[in-house]
Amino acid sequence: MKPDRRDFGVIHSRQPANAAGLFTRNNFPGHAVTVGREHLASGSLQTIIVNSGNANVATGPAGLELARECCALTAEALKIKAEAVLPSSTGVIARALPAELMRNACRSIPEHITTDDFASFADAIRTTDAYVKTHNLELMSGIRITGVAKGAGMIQPDMATMLAYLLTDAKIETEDLKRMLRAVADRSFNRLSVDGDTSTSDTLVSMANGSSGVKVVFPEEAERAFYEFHYPIRNDELAALPGMDGHSREFLSGLLETCIVLTRLIAADGEGATRLIELRIRGARDREQALKFGRSIINSPLVKTAIYGADPNWGRLIMALGKVYDEPIPLEGVRIFFGDYELKTDEPDNLKIVSNYLKQSEVLLTIELGQGQSQETLWGCDLTEDYVRLNSMYTT
Amino acid sequence: MKPDRRDFGVIHSRQPANAAGLFTRNNFPGHAVTVGREHLASGSLQTIIVNSGNANVATGPAGLELARECCALTAEALKIKAEAVLPSSTGVIARALPAELMRNACRSIPEHITTDDFASFADAIRTTDAYVKTHNLELMSGIRITGVAKGAGMIQPDMATMLAYLLTDAKIETEDLKRMLRAVADRSFNRLSVDGDTSTSDTLVSMANGSSGVKVVFPEEAERAFYEFHYPIRNDELAALPGMDGHSREFLSGLLETCIVLTRLIAADGEGATRLIELRIRGARDREQALKFGRSIINSPLVKTAIYGADPNWGRLIMALGKVYDEPIPLEGVRIFFGDYELKTDEPDNLKIVSNYLKQSEVLLTIELGQGQSQETLWGCDLTEDYVRLNSMYTT
Repeated sequence: MKPDRRDFGVIHSRQPANAAGLFTRNNFPGHAVTVGREHLASGSLQTIIVNSGNANVATGPAGLELARECCALTAEALKIKAEAVLPSSTGVIARALPAELMRNACRSIPEHITTDDFASFADAIRTTDAYVKTHNLELMSGIRITGVAKGAGMIQPDMATMLAYLLTDAKIETEDLKRMLRAVADRSFNRLSVDGDTSTSDTLVSMANGSSGVKVVFPEEAERAFYEFHYPIRNDELAALPGMDGHSREFLSGLLETCIVLTRLIAADGEGATRLIELRIRGARDREQALKFGRSIINSPLVKTAIYGADPNWGRLIMALGKVYDEPIPLEGVRIFFGDYELKTDEPDNLKIVSNYLKQSEVLLTIELGQGQSQETLWGCDLTEDYVRLNSMYTT
Repeated sequence: MKPDRRDFGVIHSRQPANAAGLFTRNNFPGHAVTVGREHLASGSLQTIIVNSGNANVATGPAGLELARECCALTAEALKIKAEAVLPSSTGVIARALPAELMRNACRSIPEHITTDDFASFADAIRTTDAYVKTHNLELMSGIRITGVAKGAGMIQPDMATMLAYLLTDAKIETEDLKRMLRAVADRSFNRLSVDGDTSTSDTLVSMANGSSGVKVVFPEEAERAFYEFHYPIRNDELAALPGMDGHSREFLSGLLETCIVLTRLIAADGEGATRLIELRIRGARDREQALKFGRSIINSPLVKTAIYGADPNWGRLIMALGKVYDEPIPLEGVRIFFGDYELKTDEPDNLKIVSNYLKQSEVLLTIELGQGQSQETLWGCDLTEDYVRLNSMYTT
């Protein structure tokens, strides 16, 4: 599918792994998402196959049939069940996936598979990504976590999709893994916005094959307690999670770290982006209010272009807060910080300092609402001419 | 406020006019909006004063006081009541409005006022507008309607505001005028989106001074019936409006036309825009569903950049429909037209023809949902490098 680059990647576990997944909320999901959802119903996976260059979206019944056939051929080659295979596809859409190429690739998996070569996998699943996106952790407990992602969420040409895979040798029940994946994704990937558009193929899958022998848990009461925390989560908060032992807490913390690193890599690689924006909404009445204001800011084209121009534009930030119509708050309580600098519109020197700060490749924007104690963190990027160029020059 | 250009404009009616207004929903409105709302409470106006170059937003109590003082000075100069004056301000924000300049301008109004020079007024209220925006109608009944607008809605640098004034010599009660303004704005300005950001100063005001002597009405039952119509409204639908005579129907139709012309002028002048997009959502279950899909399409950066690139990108349109999460519809019923051409992804010739069509400065995009009989029209523009350039190079 890509003449000069890798375009097919496989993750395979020697033994079946408990697995959980989260998929795009788009109402027109790609065929790979449809098949992936079906195969994850059993709560177990052994293999993930990903092709880049063609998203197999809107390719009709033949596209769905081919996605299933690829799983079956992979399973046959690896002597496992077809339901243990999850497919992902990313790339151009509404063009038939080359069937023979895909079939041959699936059949030849056993000849090519190697050990722990996540860099090649991460490279194979790239589309317009500027760099590969991986993160590895070895925990005190001995558990290893590897995260691999591609894409820039909701930004790449033709919606080229966020795919992320979290692989671990932890021993964890499927239901616990599902809860933990949902919880950590909520505090990382779900707080990422590049342009507000949503791919039809977004996929986040976690596999835990238990080979470390170290058991971890994440009971329902811990999940409930987790949602009360703010990011960054403090160690004493982690320690207070009910029903969790030390290994489990360390694992949760590691999985969240992996997701946040990948989220930040994706935001920084947003198409045309020159700046990663980390946005903290502080002093909100509750989570819902914090996220409403946060999403309005992180998606505002006028805020994003101002940050691209290193312009500490108080007015645009206030505008973006003010257009959350159902949350009127007094302007007097609002304070805005870039890095450690509070933005003060009546001090020209202050504006110069903040403008210099904004020239960094990473910007921390903090908005204090003065409404309460809740806090949320979101990630995004600036909006540049290159975003427009890349997305207007791409032709179907 | 602007060294080499007009920056102060006045509309004055020889006699008090019934008046109605609609203002920004932003929770941090400018001082002029606050005073304008107060003065419109009486249902009557005689004069509108507008300055460009400074929005008088976030200028503290002094800014609010100055807005009131300008109304008082204007009233004194013209020998009317201060409450009969509505102020508007547009331009940079969080910078003090030059008080003496404004006071002198208000005091000198009687020396400068001329008759029917709407072109100068339209020029004086411009900020980054590429051209003046006016529309004049003389109806069969003898009623005249003049519409003047500035800005590009939610797109200009530092939120430079949409201001629109609809002036007429029709004889209409304030309550009828309020209803009619709400109705025609709903089908025009409220269907306009340039970048989804919302100015703190958006203002739409109508004055009807009755000097034509021709009486028109718009009773409640007519307003209710009006909301059932689709744009473009057919003559037989207009004829069926309850409680309306011929003059009233003609006036309603003329006021709507004026608003739609101004809406289209604003969309076409959207910052950096090269193409006006008229979007028709057809075959919707109801109005709400049509607008949800319409807003998702008209605001999608990936759709807007594709149209800029003259790329008939079926996939991005489907993506934007699919991300209306709470409205899942079957893909099979969806049909997409650019102009008269139905988009067919499997016919390369078709894509070429449509791509050529997309090179025009005005694009009609029709999406048939296959869900029912409801239809809505929205207006927007493409997203270009110039939008980013203009909004990132502007510095507070």
